[in-house]
Amino acid sequence: MSAQAPHNTLLIPGPIEFDDAVLQSMSHYAESHVAPGFVKTFGETLTLTRKLFQSTSPTAQPFIIAGSGTLGWDLVASNLIERGENALVLNTGYFGDSFGQCLETYGANVTHFTTPIGERASLEEVEQALKQKPYKLITLTHVDTSTGVLSDVKGVAQLVRRVSPETLVIVDGVCSVGSEEIAFDEWDLDAVVTASQKAIGCPPGLSIVMTSGRAIQVSKTRKTPATSYYASIANWLPIMVNYENHKPSYFATPPTQLVHALHTTLTQITADVPGRFAQHTQVSDKVKAAVAELGLKQIASQPEAQAHGMTAMYLPEGLTPPDVLPGLLKRGVIFAAGLHKAIATKYIRFGHMGVSVTDPKRNDVDHALAALKEALAEAKQAKGL
Amino acid sequence: MSAQAPHNTLLIPGPIEFDDAVLQSMSHYAESHVAPGFVKTFGETLTLTRKLFQSTSPTAQPFIIAGSGTLGWDLVASNLIERGENALVLNTGYFGDSFGQCLETYGANVTHFTTPIGERASLEEVEQALKQKPYKLITLTHVDTSTGVLSDVKGVAQLVRRVSPETLVIVDGVCSVGSEEIAFDEWDLDAVVTASQKAIGCPPGLSIVMTSGRAIQVSKTRKTPATSYYASIANWLPIMVNYENHKPSYFATPPTQLVHALHTTLTQITADVPGRFAQHTQVSDKVKAAVAELGLKQIASQPEAQAHGMTAMYLPEGLTPPDVLPGLLKRGVIFAAGLHKAIATKYIRFGHMGVSVTDPKRNDVDHALAALKEALAEAKQAKGL
Repeated sequence: MSAQAPHNTLLIPGPIEFDDAVLQSMSHYAESHVAPGFVKTFGETLTLTRKLFQSTSPTAQPFIIAGSGTLGWDLVASNLIERGENALVLNTGYFGDSFGQCLETYGANVTHFTTPIGERASLEEVEQALKQKPYKLITLTHVDTSTGVLSDVKGVAQLVRRVSPETLVIVDGVCSVGSEEIAFDEWDLDAVVTASQKAIGCPPGLSIVMTSGRAIQVSKTRKTPATSYYASIANWLPIMVNYENHKPSYFATPPTQLVHALHTTLTQITADVPGRFAQHTQVSDKVKAAVAELGLKQIASQPEAQAHGMTAMYLPEGLTPPDVLPGLLKRGVIFAAGLHKAIATKYIRFGHMGVSVTDPKRNDVDHALAALKEALAEAKQAKGL
Repeated sequence: MSAQAPHNTLLIPGPIEFDDAVLQSMSHYAESHVAPGFVKTFGETLTLTRKLFQSTSPTAQPFIIAGSGTLGWDLVASNLIERGENALVLNTGYFGDSFGQCLETYGANVTHFTTPIGERASLEEVEQALKQKPYKLITLTHVDTSTGVLSDVKGVAQLVRRVSPETLVIVDGVCSVGSEEIAFDEWDLDAVVTASQKAIGCPPGLSIVMTSGRAIQVSKTRKTPATSYYASIANWLPIMVNYENHKPSYFATPPTQLVHALHTTLTQITADVPGRFAQHTQVSDKVKAAVAELGLKQIASQPEAQAHGMTAMYLPEGLTPPDVLPGLLKRGVIFAAGLHKAIATKYIRFGHMGVSVTDPKRNDVDHALAALKEALAEAKQAKGL
């Protein structure tokens, strides 16, 4: 932590704590976005993004664009589906609702498959739902940041290829890429939408979208023109291809400093992608065991549907987030309050991603678990529970 | 320059050189986007944005969103005009063409008023054009980065209010905000679209849009829903209002580090907004005089239509940018090649904005002018001219 000013440890489900080298990249001196130095950095960053997704397919295409993760939804909704076509949203919380709204903004006919809070649809249920209509695309939130529910991306993708092979498989990986296993080519996904500030460990401000050759082809063979300018695949595709070939190109100015930071963190991550997933699983198992020992129930009720980069836990009856979060803060730890409106006052969220997991010297997770235990005891005592 | 690694001086029309304090803000430690510290910083940054535009109107509304300047065009095109309505684009170069394409993407019926390269429409011509059709909005590029032509924003806005008072006046200020005078309320503008990386002096990655109460009202009383999700005024308006009132709010994660950097630079700029414009005018006059002395003609032919933050100059007959730019680079100075396709091989661009203008200790402009003189002489000699 030497290079950073003293601060409380940010353990929410994004943004997360940064590695010193990543933050140093943020203050890179001014560069032209079309000068050889930056063009090389951006090109390498695109190639590293392929490695992050364990993809070697020459037809797959990463996009890195100035924006929040949300912008990736617009890229999907304005390029990969046309007005009146059907979209099936496997809804596991807040972000399923919002992705659905985005798709509707661009004219898609959206069907939500909604499960009770904390659960995910079974493959049998998804199969039934897929058979109701011809769906242009299906979306699933890999990890819903509001609930910590993990979707079965591999299983759903296999199912789609079997029962509705033309349907595009779209994954919202904002809270999963970098902490949950994703094998983009092997699982035959069509788009994974993510952002820089969660398990990727870069400051917020980059929308990152990985697309398949099939998705690019769908965007090129639309019956009607794409319905966004800034989120247009046609506008960005030649830019991304040129930069990756180390040729300057212009559509809109890339966020040069953020691209440097992304390059730094992806260089670290891609040194051992499977090892990174294993580390996140190991630390998650430890957190889940400690939370159970404290007598707390997770929002995600099925063990196989629990995220590895965050834990959303119900507070003991009688306690709300404002009873517990200040006790954590007093101990230098920041967790997040609830986000899912139906249960927001009943739970808190602990993000365990990135350097807090991969750099054991920081001791962030053990410290947070100890702080949680003390803050809960203090809150219960204060309420006479 | 003490805090930055040694590097060539970036004097293109954006991105530009950064103040050390701005770059330091880029490596701010991790913060939650809804924690009190960041909420205060973002709220203050919105208020500083009003000052930058010399606006005190309570109905005017600034937006600061993760994205490139281009995203601001989508915000205008998807919220302030509806399918089939008319837009008049006063086209002074590359960026007029592109803004027109963006408006057409969202269904606007676009008329370009095009002038010869280096010129701008006279007010009489604009008046004639405005009388041909009922226009929902008119756009003008305050400074076209491709040509250095300065539009008469104040004059056009007055004219519109007189002859077509319902028409919204939309200014592309990507290459003007921070170096050219803009009095948002007094000139009665409806939207100014800009970005962080030019005369504002912040790294790229922020789309900044100032809107009038009239524009917000138009967005609220559309006959059809707005046609973007990420660029939707309705989605962002409550977020901006809440943050400025120091209340956390969520639609998409703001780019926390870039917002800190914007806060730092706007604090510097707004200490004396009129003084900043005067400084840019003074340095621009000096550059233009030196360029004339070198026998070079500007692309912007009329003196009143020449930008104060950049100078685009034709090279002597027989020279192209690759003959001159390496000679500048050898002397530690980076200028930009031509961008306007019709004349791209014939001219170069010199950006004089931000700290290179306001911090005389840097000596950037004098050094660049001396380097230009030497590089030109060298290039002429090499070509036997």
